[in-house]
Amino acid sequence: MTQTKNTLPKKEDDISKWYLAVIEQARLADYGKTKGTIILRPYGYALWENIQACLDPLFKKHGVENAYFPLLIPYSLLEKEKKHVAGFSPELAIVTIGGGEELTEKLVVRPTSETIMYDAFANWIESYKDLPLKINQWCNVVRWELRTFPFLRGSEFLWQEGHTVHKTNEEAQAMTLQALDWYRSFYEDVLAISSYVGEKSGSERFAGADRTFSIELVIPDGKALQAATSHNLGQNFSKSFKIQYSDENNKQQYPFQTSWGLSTRSIGGLILSHGDDNGLIMPPRIAPYQVVIIPIDSRSDETNREIKVMVKKLEGVFEKNQIRFLVMDDYDKTIGYRLNTSEIMGIPIRIEVGGDEVAKNSLTVSDRILLKKRHIPFDGIVEAMEDTMEMVQKELLKLSKFNKENKTKEVETFEEFEKIMLEDKQFIRAFWCESSTCESKIKEKTTATTRVIELDRMNDNHKGSCIYCGNPARRKWLFAQSY
Amino acid sequence: MTQTKNTLPKKEDDISKWYLAVIEQARLADYGKTKGTIILRPYGYALWENIQACLDPLFKKHGVENAYFPLLIPYSLLEKEKKHVAGFSPELAIVTIGGGEELTEKLVVRPTSETIMYDAFANWIESYKDLPLKINQWCNVVRWELRTFPFLRGSEFLWQEGHTVHKTNEEAQAMTLQALDWYRSFYEDVLAISSYVGEKSGSERFAGADRTFSIELVIPDGKALQAATSHNLGQNFSKSFKIQYSDENNKQQYPFQTSWGLSTRSIGGLILSHGDDNGLIMPPRIAPYQVVIIPIDSRSDETNREIKVMVKKLEGVFEKNQIRFLVMDDYDKTIGYRLNTSEIMGIPIRIEVGGDEVAKNSLTVSDRILLKKRHIPFDGIVEAMEDTMEMVQKELLKLSKFNKENKTKEVETFEEFEKIMLEDKQFIRAFWCESSTCESKIKEKTTATTRVIELDRMNDNHKGSCIYCGNPARRKWLFAQSY
Repeated sequence: MTQTKNTLPKKEDDISKWYLAVIEQARLADYGKTKGTIILRPYGYALWENIQACLDPLFKKHGVENAYFPLLIPYSLLEKEKKHVAGFSPELAIVTIGGGEELTEKLVVRPTSETIMYDAFANWIESYKDLPLKINQWCNVVRWELRTFPFLRGSEFLWQEGHTVHKTNEEAQAMTLQALDWYRSFYEDVLAISSYVGEKSGSERFAGADRTFSIELVIPDGKALQAATSHNLGQNFSKSFKIQYSDENNKQQYPFQTSWGLSTRSIGGLILSHGDDNGLIMPPRIAPYQVVIIPIDSRSDETNREIKVMVKKLEGVFEKNQIRFLVMDDYDKTIGYRLNTSEIMGIPIRIEVGGDEVAKNSLTVSDRILLKKRHIPFDGIVEAMEDTMEMVQKELLKLSKFNKENKTKEVETFEEFEKIMLEDKQFIRAFWCESSTCESKIKEKTTATTRVIELDRMNDNHKGSCIYCGNPARRKWLFAQSY
Repeated sequence: MTQTKNTLPKKEDDISKWYLAVIEQARLADYGKTKGTIILRPYGYALWENIQACLDPLFKKHGVENAYFPLLIPYSLLEKEKKHVAGFSPELAIVTIGGGEELTEKLVVRPTSETIMYDAFANWIESYKDLPLKINQWCNVVRWELRTFPFLRGSEFLWQEGHTVHKTNEEAQAMTLQALDWYRSFYEDVLAISSYVGEKSGSERFAGADRTFSIELVIPDGKALQAATSHNLGQNFSKSFKIQYSDENNKQQYPFQTSWGLSTRSIGGLILSHGDDNGLIMPPRIAPYQVVIIPIDSRSDETNREIKVMVKKLEGVFEKNQIRFLVMDDYDKTIGYRLNTSEIMGIPIRIEVGGDEVAKNSLTVSDRILLKKRHIPFDGIVEAMEDTMEMVQKELLKLSKFNKENKTKEVETFEEFEKIMLEDKQFIRAFWCESSTCESKIKEKTTATTRVIELDRMNDNHKGSCIYCGNPARRKWLFAQSY
């Protein structure tokens, strides 16, 4: 049986080309009519649904409640927090006409919802008994951007934004790190991606936050993808929006706030992290289809009938065991085409059912990583699926960890730094004096930005010297070029 | 034990005032900063989540796949279907500025997604093998409207919009009726609302559709609420958007399309249909909380400890049996306040746990309709919950059916028609000649519009005469004033 060769570019040769080709051929997304927009096709949207199905119950278990706030924000509300509006104004889409008339106040299509939510929070919160308040919203946001790189950059994306209000800064900081850890473990346990987790530098902070933390993925080409963020907003917004609560002594106090978000960008991270030259590889825990069943049609009608019966039986078993599957039985397409398509789609397990399988009451199983065929007796199929999914999930994470470590270098001189960044992109861990002057000089010369100071290095107190200026530096930061 | 009297207006006296008060006091929604907008607060949004949890698996079971299309639609795309753009232009919100610059082409914030979806469908569909195509989208839409009546009218709402493409008109018509029946049964079986189901008159048709069908609720004040619609679009859009497929003989054909939607308006219908002077009444199948547990604090610390243990045990039992519950144990609020709040929220079952209950290892249970207390042994609580939920669900539907029939009159003369519509709003079933002249005259004189011709009366062929002009009329239509 020959397999039609796919038309994907090699991933190592040009990851961007490979990425765009795989998105198109696996039908994950399509370009929208308006510049900067994409359409999430069913296979791509199913990933987002599965992401929601993982995160949403986790948030709820921790007392976070979902709500929905208006899409259109009066410009004056956005202006209330000065740094916030300054950060977002270059990328706003603005509604100026409504119901055929010029609006007296222009409305911003939400780029994020701090301002419209906190305006309401000011009404909702009266006393310390109303705290903590923990709200999450699943929605679309618009940030004007004409360049489209599907999932990673565009003018509209889907996300969740969590917003919490607390009595103390300690509680807000704990919440900020809690959300960050949800994201870390989601990437690791579900998307099988090992990440760097830490705090952003001052220049990379969210507009209006005291502290910003993020999850940074090491893409196989050595570039960084900021994959989720969590902000300690301090009292900046509570003061601008006059959110106050009366404390136990009946004194008015400004509470402390956090916000944190994860978007459809995570799907981009997923695609880039795991695919190979044959297409995507979906970690089983997030895969829209965990198994593809491919009936191999025989020349005998009798055998074909038996194949159909066996496939039907298999469907029943999978439904009962909540294994997500796809049957590729479009016989007008060649087997080669179907095998090829299922590989591009990255379905982690493939089951072939043909005459041999019917005769032996067994199934031919292969996984998307090793592609090696095994014969499994029908009665053992559920266990084999569970084992194989577990294996693929673990293997992908192992590969991701290896990639992360392999693509991270510690350097001592700026010469080495420049050489690595310009010749062979990688993550670099290096001493930095934490002055924004050095940070921008480094960016100017190498296009690399500070990614994070890792959480477990935040309290370091080395006697190092800055990779750029040589002045004293106590901590090593991660640098990389970013998506 | 005295119960704090609530401050709700009486429902029969002024249903609008009651509606607004109950939405505020049950914290279902809040007004947004921009005119015409509302905020779905957690209790209101939970209803929408439950609605999604009912409909989404039903759609998927029937082969409908979810996807997501861009929010912003180029104006030129909207213009492609002439009737469609004419119908929607008065209510558009338009983005004219993006990224700080005046846009060369203005962008419409989607009022519905036919145009942007069908532009993509034209690329996706090539052959008859690609049909039927069944896509659904859960999203927000904006239709400019400055008057706000929460859930029922406003400038933004959440909905699902299903869009399908078929080879034949028969198939499209079957799909149109299938979606309509999903909605009917959802209202009846889940929201416990009996509705009228039928076809709209020409003047009430969706802009661009060949035929529009709808679900009409009979609100207790006798007015109509259009609660979901399903459209047979014929080939109107496929011709405008050049969606073509090659048929079995390799000939290019225009397919037939449908679209159908249900929105957060359904929550408005739910509130209006079931509440009473004490507040909302949630049908158990949709209730965010099916049971409220109210610990009645005792003067004895020992008893209070035992109460806590019993409540904890009850929580465990409910979690295990997937019964959705809320514990109202904020002791700084009076028991009267808590009972009152749980009634306003319409939680269908209430369980009180105090010293007596602990002593007898039983629970005091009452339902939100009869409010009559019963004592249930702890071990029988799950069965009692299931029976009571079933009873409340059935009773609400029975009341809804009674209301529908009670508020529908058949009349023979226009004098009666006018009297009923102007003095005591009701649904009227009457012969109509089906001319739009009579339809608009009737509207002018009574503000009543045609609601639908019911499905089971569509083929009627009576020798009646039009209620307005007296000309021959073969079918009786439903008329009512609408929300």
